[in-house]
Amino acid sequence: MSTHKLIYDTDPGVDDAMALVFQALHPDIELLGLTSVFGNATIETTTHNARFLAGRFAPGVPVARGAAAPLKRAAPQPLAWIHGDNGLGNIALGATEHAPLDARPAHRFIIDTVRAHPGEVTLLAVGPLTNLALALAEDPQIAPLVKQVVIMGGAFGTDGVLGNVTPAAEANILGDPDAADIVFGAAWPVAIVGLDVTQRTVMSQDYLASIRDRGGAAGQFVWDVSRHYEAFHQQSAQLRGIYVHDSSAVAYVLAPHLYTTRSGPVRVLTDGIAVGQTIQKPSAMPVPAPDWDERPECQVCVGVDAAGMLALYENTVCAKG
Amino acid sequence: MSTHKLIYDTDPGVDDAMALVFQALHPDIELLGLTSVFGNATIETTTHNARFLAGRFAPGVPVARGAAAPLKRAAPQPLAWIHGDNGLGNIALGATEHAPLDARPAHRFIIDTVRAHPGEVTLLAVGPLTNLALALAEDPQIAPLVKQVVIMGGAFGTDGVLGNVTPAAEANILGDPDAADIVFGAAWPVAIVGLDVTQRTVMSQDYLASIRDRGGAAGQFVWDVSRHYEAFHQQSAQLRGIYVHDSSAVAYVLAPHLYTTRSGPVRVLTDGIAVGQTIQKPSAMPVPAPDWDERPECQVCVGVDAAGMLALYENTVCAKG
Repeated sequence: MSTHKLIYDTDPGVDDAMALVFQALHPDIELLGLTSVFGNATIETTTHNARFLAGRFAPGVPVARGAAAPLKRAAPQPLAWIHGDNGLGNIALGATEHAPLDARPAHRFIIDTVRAHPGEVTLLAVGPLTNLALALAEDPQIAPLVKQVVIMGGAFGTDGVLGNVTPAAEANILGDPDAADIVFGAAWPVAIVGLDVTQRTVMSQDYLASIRDRGGAAGQFVWDVSRHYEAFHQQSAQLRGIYVHDSSAVAYVLAPHLYTTRSGPVRVLTDGIAVGQTIQKPSAMPVPAPDWDERPECQVCVGVDAAGMLALYENTVCAKG
Repeated sequence: MSTHKLIYDTDPGVDDAMALVFQALHPDIELLGLTSVFGNATIETTTHNARFLAGRFAPGVPVARGAAAPLKRAAPQPLAWIHGDNGLGNIALGATEHAPLDARPAHRFIIDTVRAHPGEVTLLAVGPLTNLALALAEDPQIAPLVKQVVIMGGAFGTDGVLGNVTPAAEANILGDPDAADIVFGAAWPVAIVGLDVTQRTVMSQDYLASIRDRGGAAGQFVWDVSRHYEAFHQQSAQLRGIYVHDSSAVAYVLAPHLYTTRSGPVRVLTDGIAVGQTIQKPSAMPVPAPDWDERPECQVCVGVDAAGMLALYENTVCAKG
C-alpha cells in the first residue's frame, strides 16, 4: 500500500477527534502536521484540542495554529450544543503532554510542507477552508504541487438536503464561503465529501460500543468523546447513532473505491439567503454555464458503501485493541 | 371520483400539448379555461398553440392570453431547439378551428374564475408563474379561495440535479423567479412537481409508439408532436425517450398517491449565479431559518411511482382509442 502524507486541517470538534484517531492508527497514513482553524469552537479551543489529540495519539506530529475567523466575515459562534463547551464532548482531557506548537501560522506551515514534498502531500480539510485559501493567497504556485485536497463539507441534495445549518448550507462551507469558493476553483485536484455521503454513514450506539470494547484505549476514547455528540443526534435528528462526517474524508483518502463520485466544477454561493451553498455543474450537463465552465473539475461524492466505510474504521481502530 | 375544475396555465410547448391531451381526455377533469404565458416560445406562439389545442381537444374551453415577459426581466429566448420553431415540434397544425380568445388578460380570467367557484378551482401551472403572481397582485384575496396550485417547476437535488437550464435552475422557475417566489409564499396550498420526479418518469419510444397505435387521433397527435422533442432528448441527454414534465403535474392532480411529498416552505433565489433555484426547508429540519420560517408549507414531490404514472397517462389517452 502506498503511504499518504497528510496535513490534517481541523477544528476539533468531536468527529474531528474521531477522524484523528483513525488517521493516527492507520498504517498507510503519515501525518506531517495538524493545522487548526476556527469552526466547531474558537481557534483557542480548536488549537488546544489539536495539540491534545496529536500529543496523545500522534506523538511527534506538530500543530500549527490557523485562522481565528473567516476571510471576510466575523467568526461564527462555537457549536457547543453539538461538540460540548470544550469542543470534545465535555470529557476530561487528563494530563497528556500536548504536541508542540509550530512557530508558523497554519497557512505558512501548509506552504512550506507542500514545497518540501512536491506532489506528495494530501490536504485533508474538515473545517472552514480559511487556512487553505490563505495559503493560496500567499503562494498561489503551491496548487499544482499538492497531490490532492480532500474536503469534508457541502451538500448537493442527493441525500435530500442541501445543508444542515441552514436549508442551503453545510456548516464547514458556511463557516467561510469565500474561502471555499477559492479552494474549489484552484488548480489542485479537489474531492468533496459532503452530507450526501456522510449522512448516509451512521455509527450506531452498538457499533461504538463494540469499538469501545475491542479498541483498547483508543476505542475507549472514541466512545467517551462521542457521548455528548450522540445525544445531540438523538435530540435533533431522532437518530440512534451519529453521522460520520470527518472520518468519511479519511476513508476517501484511504479507500476511494468506497465512494461514487461525480465530476464537474463547483461554486459556492457567497451571499443571499442561500449563502454557503455548494453547487456543482456535472460535467455531463450539456448547457453552457459561464460561472462554472472556466473552473477546474472537482470530484463530488454522491454515493457510498457505508458498510465498507464503517468496517474500515472499526478494523483500523481495533487492530491493536 | 370527484371532478377537478382546472385552469391550465401553459406555454405550449410539446409537453404542454401532451398534458393538455391528458386533461382533455380524463373524465375527472373539467377544464374551465387555458391561460397562456411566455416561456417555451413567445406569448404570440404559446397563445396561438393554446387556442389550437383547446379547439382541437377541448372544444368550448376558452383561452385567455397572459404575460409576454417576466415581472421584472426581459423575456427569455424561445426554446426552439427543444420545442420546434412553432412550439409544437414543427408539426403541421392543420385547419382545426381555434378556441375563442377571452377578452380578459389571463390573470383577470384567473381571478374571475376562482371567485366564481370559491374553493373549487385547481390552478395547474406548467410555465413561468407570471400570470399567477399578477393575479395575486391584483386580488390578493383570491389565494384562500383556490383549492390548490399544482406547479411543474423547480428541482431539489434528490434526482442529482438542481436544474436543467443552469446548474441551479429549472426552466419554468428561471423564466420568472420573482413570480415563483411570490406564488410559493402565498396563502394557497401549493404542490411542486419538479425535476426530482419528472426526470425519473420517462416515456420510451416504444411507449409512445403504443399510444400512437392504440390512442386513435389523440394518440397519433401525441406521437407526432413528440418527434422533435424526442430527438432533442436523444441528442442532449443520450436519453432513449422523453422526460415527462408537464403531464406529471396532471398526474399529481388526478392521483397524488403516485407521489411522495416533503412538506416545508420553499424559497426561490432571485439573483446571483444560482438565480431561479428552488430551496425547501423541510419541516423536519430542526434549525431556525428566518428566510423560510414565516412562509407557508409547500408540498414538494421527491418520489414517484413512475410505472403508475405512465399507466395512468396511457390508459387515459387510449381509453377511446
